[in-house]
Amino acid sequence: MATAEIIGSATDVNSIVAALNTIANSNDVLFLVVFGALVFMMQWGFLMLEGGQVRKKNVNNVMMKNVADWLIGCVSFLLIGYVLTTSLDPSAFTAWWGKIFGTASFLADNGLELATWFFGLVFAATAATIASGGVAERMKLKSYLIASAIITGLLYPLFVYIGPWGSELLVFHDYAGSIMVHALGGFLALGLIIALGPRIGRYVKGKAIPMPGHSIPMAMSGAFILAVGWYGFNVGSSLAVGEISGLVAATTTLAMAGGGLGALLASNKDVLFTPNGLVAGLVAICAGTDIVSPIAALVIGIIAGIQVPLVFKFLEKKGIDDVCGVVSVHGTAGIIGAICAGIFGSAALGGSGDVSLINQLIAVVVVVLYGTGFGLLLGKVIGYFTGGIRVTAEEEKLGLDLAEHHLSAYPEED
Amino acid sequence: MATAEIIGSATDVNSIVAALNTIANSNDVLFLVVFGALVFMMQWGFLMLEGGQVRKKNVNNVMMKNVADWLIGCVSFLLIGYVLTTSLDPSAFTAWWGKIFGTASFLADNGLELATWFFGLVFAATAATIASGGVAERMKLKSYLIASAIITGLLYPLFVYIGPWGSELLVFHDYAGSIMVHALGGFLALGLIIALGPRIGRYVKGKAIPMPGHSIPMAMSGAFILAVGWYGFNVGSSLAVGEISGLVAATTTLAMAGGGLGALLASNKDVLFTPNGLVAGLVAICAGTDIVSPIAALVIGIIAGIQVPLVFKFLEKKGIDDVCGVVSVHGTAGIIGAICAGIFGSAALGGSGDVSLINQLIAVVVVVLYGTGFGLLLGKVIGYFTGGIRVTAEEEKLGLDLAEHHLSAYPEED
Amino acid sequence: MATAEIIGSATDVNSIVAALNTIANSNDVLFLVVFGALVFMMQWGFLMLEGGQVRKKNVNNVMMKNVADWLIGCVSFLLIGYVLTTSLDPSAFTAWWGKIFGTASFLADNGLELATWFFGLVFAATAATIASGGVAERMKLKSYLIASAIITGLLYPLFVYIGPWGSELLVFHDYAGSIMVHALGGFLALGLIIALGPRIGRYVKGKAIPMPGHSIPMAMSGAFILAVGWYGFNVGSSLAVGEISGLVAATTTLAMAGGGLGALLASNKDVLFTPNGLVAGLVAICAGTDIVSPIAALVIGIIAGIQVPLVFKFLEKKGIDDVCGVVSVHGTAGIIGAICAGIFGSAALGGSGDVSLINQLIAVVVVVLYGTGFGLLLGKVIGYFTGGIRVTAEEEKLGLDLAEHHLSAYPEED
Repeated sequence: MATAEIIGSATDVNSIVAALNTIANSNDVLFLVVFGALVFMMQWGFLMLEGGQVRKKNVNNVMMKNVADWLIGCVSFLLIGYVLTTSLDPSAFTAWWGKIFGTASFLADNGLELATWFFGLVFAATAATIASGGVAERMKLKSYLIASAIITGLLYPLFVYIGPWGSELLVFHDYAGSIMVHALGGFLALGLIIALGPRIGRYVKGKAIPMPGHSIPMAMSGAFILAVGWYGFNVGSSLAVGEISGLVAATTTLAMAGGGLGALLASNKDVLFTPNGLVAGLVAICAGTDIVSPIAALVIGIIAGIQVPLVFKFLEKKGIDDVCGVVSVHGTAGIIGAICAGIFGSAALGGSGDVSLINQLIAVVVVVLYGTGFGLLLGKVIGYFTGGIRVTAEEEKLGLDLAEHHLSAYPEED
Repeated sequence: MATAEIIGSATDVNSIVAALNTIANSNDVLFLVVFGALVFMMQWGFLMLEGGQVRKKNVNNVMMKNVADWLIGCVSFLLIGYVLTTSLDPSAFTAWWGKIFGTASFLADNGLELATWFFGLVFAATAATIASGGVAERMKLKSYLIASAIITGLLYPLFVYIGPWGSELLVFHDYAGSIMVHALGGFLALGLIIALGPRIGRYVKGKAIPMPGHSIPMAMSGAFILAVGWYGFNVGSSLAVGEISGLVAATTTLAMAGGGLGALLASNKDVLFTPNGLVAGLVAICAGTDIVSPIAALVIGIIAGIQVPLVFKFLEKKGIDDVCGVVSVHGTAGIIGAICAGIFGSAALGGSGDVSLINQLIAVVVVVLYGTGFGLLLGKVIGYFTGGIRVTAEEEKLGLDLAEHHLSAYPEED
Repeated sequence: MATAEIIGSATDVNSIVAALNTIANSNDVLFLVVFGALVFMMQWGFLMLEGGQVRKKNVNNVMMKNVADWLIGCVSFLLIGYVLTTSLDPSAFTAWWGKIFGTASFLADNGLELATWFFGLVFAATAATIASGGVAERMKLKSYLIASAIITGLLYPLFVYIGPWGSELLVFHDYAGSIMVHALGGFLALGLIIALGPRIGRYVKGKAIPMPGHSIPMAMSGAFILAVGWYGFNVGSSLAVGEISGLVAATTTLAMAGGGLGALLASNKDVLFTPNGLVAGLVAICAGTDIVSPIAALVIGIIAGIQVPLVFKFLEKKGIDDVCGVVSVHGTAGIIGAICAGIFGSAALGGSGDVSLINQLIAVVVVVLYGTGFGLLLGKVIGYFTGGIRVTAEEEKLGLDLAEHHLSAYPEED
């Protein structure tokens, strides 16, 4: 039945208001599903960005990690994560579990609650999948999947609960998740990377040996897919069409441009740093996308883009083997974004003023400690239960595609 | 002119109701175009999923089949298929043909009728393109395209006419097309595959020889593209934004997760069965996506995913050379979905209760017979007119890219 | 806050009208962001279509051109281009520059102005990126980027200003930009291609030597991505959801089908001409997509598709080395589309009648002169400042990936 027929019977103020409510709820569901589908597309973007940046012998494995963390994330966010984002009360869990075995409570308001769950899920899955790019080419699939389930089921939701999207124990401004999603994912990755150690051959006599991935076009595609999905990520963060903001679309675009340009210049036209810098610009704008000016967004992006090659090389020297550069692209870009939201969000610099730099800095300290700490802990604890989180040296040399999946990415080339 | 200006003159109940009608119709067109574009994206998803699963020498050919069946489907669904879905009356055809040579009748209501046609088309094209994955690497392009035109112009529309979306001669519950689209496509493929026979070298002394495709990342990408498009496919099946359902977004997601996990476990982390299982979960949920609980959707997905490697290997043993596994991914997953809608849709299991298991079983029998029967018949009849539906042994050995298109997929590798 | 809560307080006509205005503005922003994101996706489509059609040694370079012209286009369209599309008055620029350093003026009406800016930007970026496919494999990155900045910042906006979307000095019908975007981009490319000259080895003793690209699947993917994005491009051209047209979705689809079929037949199933023909059909329908009948759209597409191989081969004979065929796909298809809008848009042929063939022909002459002329001029002037727009013969033979970026597209294959 066409929507016009549903509202067709409106003849007085009461029936008009009822029609308006149907329009409002159904538009909100449309909004959440369309933008949520764009954010879901980012799962594919990560798969491509990471797949392109690993060597041929590990492509299937990193892609399977990306696929499987999504699959597992759906289940853990359904059973535990979603409720945990807003409540620690056991009765909230039993109430939710009562509902998801049925349909009755989801038929009202066009199922707005489940559309909201879906949108929350794709954010949780983004936070979780970031780590896979850091730990690629040597982490066991099994160990990785346990870590991923714990991230989507516990660590991310608990962090949301503490922060501004949940109980507001910790108050700061983070519209779309520079801290909540990206810095969290990036520093969880850092902890896991430290726990794992570098790939065999990555350092020879203390000197870093570059290991470029197998397909730059695949990595470039990944960055573009992420960028497309980011419009869902940022603009969708209003959670309702009635509060949508065109400013967010513009600042997202301009930070992307700044990030790509910053990295392009800082890396002398490097074909991997440029798309990664573009993504870093997008990461950095998430926090203040709704409160900074278009020009400020461009500046935030440029800063985030320039730091990608610098931070990547700094960490590389420190023995941190971050295969896809996720610590710089999501971790440091995320905290830069949070800090910049505190600076450029101030009324003095053209922002809306609705932000405190102190609170932003506190959030930065918390996410670095929470992320790195739990990342390290995950590595240790899961390693205890899975006989170490790292594949054997033989498996690593053979490649994880043959070692774990018995098929290479391009079977006819064997 | 901004929408606010269009409705700006509303000052009384009548003008408000007029404004509401403009909003309703234009939102419905937006809904159909956005979700229709997502479903159209699935054409590309099939192209990638199938392209990755064939050998290097047949990639262009399978992609051209996917492109061309879309091109031809647009024309045949315009001229015949669309009207046939709702009417067998010749006057309905002449009325439609009168309209499509002009624009006058499509300017009212924001062109809602043509938006509906577009959404119907992308479904018809999905049903048609499924077969290409089964018959790859040996079916003549010409024969395939004739089959495809008949499917989008006649066989699919006639099936819609008979079923619950059309005249309701056959009544069953199939919200987004587990039966109407996927099982139909899968069993048409089965008939064509039987008519074709297996590829040269696929069976040696009665033993099946695996022929893995040339690019697992391409196949994985295809599965993800399909998954993104599926949100359009399922959530769009309300056909109007006023009847959109958040439950559908959630059950679609959870069946995808179940399908991927089921196949991952049943195939021991296989890199082709896992993405195909994910798709099978999506196929299976189409029927009951609006009436089953989130937990039931997860279970439906798991069943559909587990059966993919089992059914594929069973058919393989029976001499059915289904290159991309479309019979298990679309055919059997589709009928499992229809049956599960009958089970988990019952009020006793938390469903909305609006379904009859008997009717679902009848629909399953009908689609298996209709699909397989017409698939076989298509193979025989088209073969009669095109000198056999199969390329010569020389062409098959050379590869269909050079034989039919005179260019290989990766020209610099020759 | 859910949209229903925002409008929940409506109790009389005044508050209902206020609610309707919130719905109208927020829906328009949703419309512009979703369709704008689809159009942005076309940047990735061009990257893939062009990346697949160049040789392995130049893939990164053409992709970097596509990425960087987007990045630079965002900045130049922000600072100059956007204002220039509607005004030459200096005060309009200072007013805009005053606004983009702040947020205050963008918080009203859900930021509708910036959403409109975003949608304008993605169109400008499309016009600019077309050229990269024509000049690939030999143009310096630096020279290209200067050209691209001038196109998005000056040449495209000035053309918009003159034409029907701006001051209407020149009046013709061009709903989505067959002339304004595609023919302009295609003929700018022609001028640049002439200024550059053909690639080394492209002509031997006056005879054209084919240089097929390195990956047909990549090119096919590019065409599909463009096609998906085109629904945003054409349907989004109503600029407001209240004026959305289902006719546009249908004519876009049918012209795509006609274009693909026309090229498939005219090229004997060629795997590059077919996807390019599909794109040419989409280019051609942009002008009249809102005023021609479905059948006329199919015919327009067929004409545009058939001419692609013919025009490409004609230009090839004339010494025009158009690597990706952008002159035929965007240039001539664009002017064919404008002329066909004048013909099939007439009431006599079922069109809405709102078009003058004379005006369309004048626009065609203007765009060919403006595009080719400024393209040539860009080549000469930029060459003067960058030491020629062409890489050295050594760099060209080595490949631009290693010469300009020090990394090949598939590093493990070196």
